Amino acid sequence: MFGITPSARLRPSPFFDATVAEGVQSFTTYNNMMMPTGYGDPESEYWRLINGVSMWDVSVERQIELTGPDAGRLAQFLSPRDLTKCVEGQGKYVALCNHAGTLINDPILLKLSADRYWLSIADSNILFWARAIACERGLDVAVTEADVSPLAVQGPKAEDVIASIFGDWVRDLKYFWFSETEVAGIPVAVARSGWSKQGGFEIYLMDGKKGTALWNLVKEAGAPYEIGPGNPNACERIESGLLSWGGDTDDATNPYEVRLGPFVDLDVPDDVVGIKALRSIKAAGPKRQQLGAVLESDVPTALPSRWFDITAGGEKIGDLTNCVWSYRLKRNIGFALVSAQLQPGAEVVVHKDGAAVPAVLCKLPFI
Amino acid sequence: MFGITPSARLRPSPFFDATVAEGVQSFTTYNNMMMPTGYGDPESEYWRLINGVSMWDVSVERQIELTGPDAGRLAQFLSPRDLTKCVEGQGKYVALCNHAGTLINDPILLKLSADRYWLSIADSNILFWARAIACERGLDVAVTEADVSPLAVQGPKAEDVIASIFGDWVRDLKYFWFSETEVAGIPVAVARSGWSKQGGFEIYLMDGKKGTALWNLVKEAGAPYEIGPGNPNACERIESGLLSWGGDTDDATNPYEVRLGPFVDLDVPDDVVGIKALRSIKAAGPKRQQLGAVLESDVPTALPSRWFDITAGGEKIGDLTNCVWSYRLKRNIGFALVSAQLQPGAEVVVHKDGAAVPAVLCKLPFI
Repeated sequence: MFGITPSARLRPSPFFDATVAEGVQSFTTYNNMMMPTGYGDPESEYWRLINGVSMWDVSVERQIELTGPDAGRLAQFLSPRDLTKCVEGQGKYVALCNHAGTLINDPILLKLSADRYWLSIADSNILFWARAIACERGLDVAVTEADVSPLAVQGPKAEDVIASIFGDWVRDLKYFWFSETEVAGIPVAVARSGWSKQGGFEIYLMDGKKGTALWNLVKEAGAPYEIGPGNPNACERIESGLLSWGGDTDDATNPYEVRLGPFVDLDVPDDVVGIKALRSIKAAGPKRQQLGAVLESDVPTALPSRWFDITAGGEKIGDLTNCVWSYRLKRNIGFALVSAQLQPGAEVVVHKDGAAVPAVLCKLPFI
Repeated sequence: MFGITPSARLRPSPFFDATVAEGVQSFTTYNNMMMPTGYGDPESEYWRLINGVSMWDVSVERQIELTGPDAGRLAQFLSPRDLTKCVEGQGKYVALCNHAGTLINDPILLKLSADRYWLSIADSNILFWARAIACERGLDVAVTEADVSPLAVQGPKAEDVIASIFGDWVRDLKYFWFSETEVAGIPVAVARSGWSKQGGFEIYLMDGKKGTALWNLVKEAGAPYEIGPGNPNACERIESGLLSWGGDTDDATNPYEVRLGPFVDLDVPDDVVGIKALRSIKAAGPKRQQLGAVLESDVPTALPSRWFDITAGGEKIGDLTNCVWSYRLKRNIGFALVSAQLQPGAEVVVHKDGAAVPAVLCKLPFI
C-alpha cells in the first residue's frame, strides 16, 4: 500500500487522535478529509460488524446546513423527492441531481426545524452546489458546513450499546429519524442510520473539540459488548448492495440506473433541479442498470482503484465498478453497471488486471 | 506515514503506471484523483527541481471545458478578472469566487477558441459550480471534464528538454500561453506554466490512453539533462510563495487576503459572480493578510495536516497554514494568515504540536 502524505487540504477528523490511539493503519480521503479504513486485521473487523458491534469515524459525512426562512424551499429545489410530509426529527435518503438528471450525491436529509436542515453528504461538493442554486435564485438562506461529525456504531449489538449511553428511547427511533441530546456535556444528535445493513446508529458530534471524549465514552460503554474500531466496510457494503457515490457512479449516472428510482417523485414542482430531465429519462427508460456480478475465482481479490470492462460475446456491455472478496459467500463479488437489456443470470467476462474472468450477473443485494 | 486504501472514488492518473514504474512511494489526493508526492528521497527531488529538471504527474489539475456559443460569457461570469482582451492561445490566472466574494478556486483559464475554454483547476469541484451557474442562467454552453491531463516539466533545464521534443518555438511562448500540437501521434497542448518558480512547462496530454507513452518520451528526451521524477514540491512552493487553495485558504478567504488582489478587476460587469461582494470587501479593506513566518528552530519539521494557531501578546492573531523545512534557508518556514493590522517583522508565537515556537513574520515570497 502506498503512503498518504499529510496536507492541510485533507483535514483530520475530530476523531483523528482517538483513531490513532486505536492503531489506525490506513485511510482514504472523502470530502477533503481523512477517513480511517483499517486497523490491521480486515477480516476480524468484518466479523465484528456482522456478529457484534463496531465503531467508525465517519466525520467525512459532512453536514451541509441550510438555515433561514427559505431553507425548506432550497431543500426541495435540491431534492427530487417530495419533502412536504417530512417533519422535524425525520431524515430521508435523497438523490440529488443536476439539471441533466445526473446523480451528484445521495445524502440523508435531516429536518431539524422548519428553517434548518442538514444534508449529510457523500463524497462530492454540495456546499458549492447548494450555494450556487440558493444565490442564483435569490433565496434567503445561509448554506454552511456545520461543525457536526458523525460517529457510527454498527452491528447487531449496536442498539444495546447506544441504549446504555442514551436510554431506552433510542430503541423506538425509526430508520433515519434522529433526536438532539447531550451526553457528559457533549452536544450530539442520535440517528438510527449508518452505511451498513447490520443495524445501528450514528452519533452526530456537534462540537469538534470533543471527538476524543465522545470516542472514549462510546468505547467504554461498548466494552461489555466487545466493541472495537472499524470502518465503512467495503465487503459488507458490497454484499448488502449499498451504493458508493463516485465509486459506483460516473458523470452520466442517473438515479434509475443505480436502484434509486424509488427515491424520485416525478410530481414534485418543475423548479426542482433536474426533475424535467428525470421525467424524460424515466419515460425513455434508463440505458443502464446496476446488477451484482459473481466472479469465477477462489483467490481473494485486492480492492481495485478503477473500473473493469465487462464484455458479453466480445462486446463491451458495461463496467465492474467495485470488487471484493466476500467472507460470507467465499467468492469475489462486485457491482456491474451494465446495459439495461441484460438479465440476471447472464454470463459475462470481467477484464480484470489483464485477465479475462468469467462471471455471472445477479440481482442486488447479494445477501 | 499511513497507507492509502485503493478506491474507485480516487481515480488513478493516466500517468499512474509510469509513476509506479519510477518507484513512486506516496500520494496525496486532489480532485478525487491520486497524485504522486514522492519517490523516496525528498531532498534530492527538491535539488533536482532547483538545479536541473524534474517531471511531475499533475493530471489532477483537471480541465473543466466550456464549449458552445456562451462559453465566453460563462468564463467571464465565473471570473472576476477582465477577459475581454484574452485571445486564443492565451492563459490567465483567475481567482474564482462565490457570490460572497470567497475564493473557491484559482485556476489557469485557457482560451482555446471563441467558444471553447478550459479551467485548469485547483482542488475543488468547479464542474458542479460551473454547471450550476450555466444552467441557472440558461446559457447555451456544455460544461464537461475533458480528457486532458497535465504533465509538468519544471526547473532551469526544462526549456531545453521541451525544445528538444517540440522545437525551438516553445522558447518564445509567453507565461501561461500555450499551443496545441502533437508528438509521436500523441495529441497535446504545450503551455509555459507550472506550480513552481523555477521555470518550466506543462504538457497537456489530450488522450488518457497515452500517459505511459508521453511519460517515457519526456523521460528519454530529458535523459541528457538528468531529468527525474518529482512532484509539486512543498518546500519549493512555500519558499516561492505559491498558494495552495484549500490548504492555505478556508471558507471565508477572499482574494485580497491571499495576495490575489491584482487578479481582480472591480470594473467587470455586475453579473460576474461575486463582484459586488468583492467591491465591498475592497472598500472596507480585507481583515486578514498572508505573510511568511520564519520559525525559531533548527530541527526540520514534518509536513503538518492542520493549521496551527498564531498568537501575539497572548491573543490569537491568525493561523500558520503550512510549514516546511527550507533546504535553502535552513529554517522552518510557513504561510501566516493573520490580522491585516500586523506588519512584517512582527514577533509572534506559533502553537505547533503542543509547543510554543517563537517566529518572525515577513513578506512573501521567502526567496
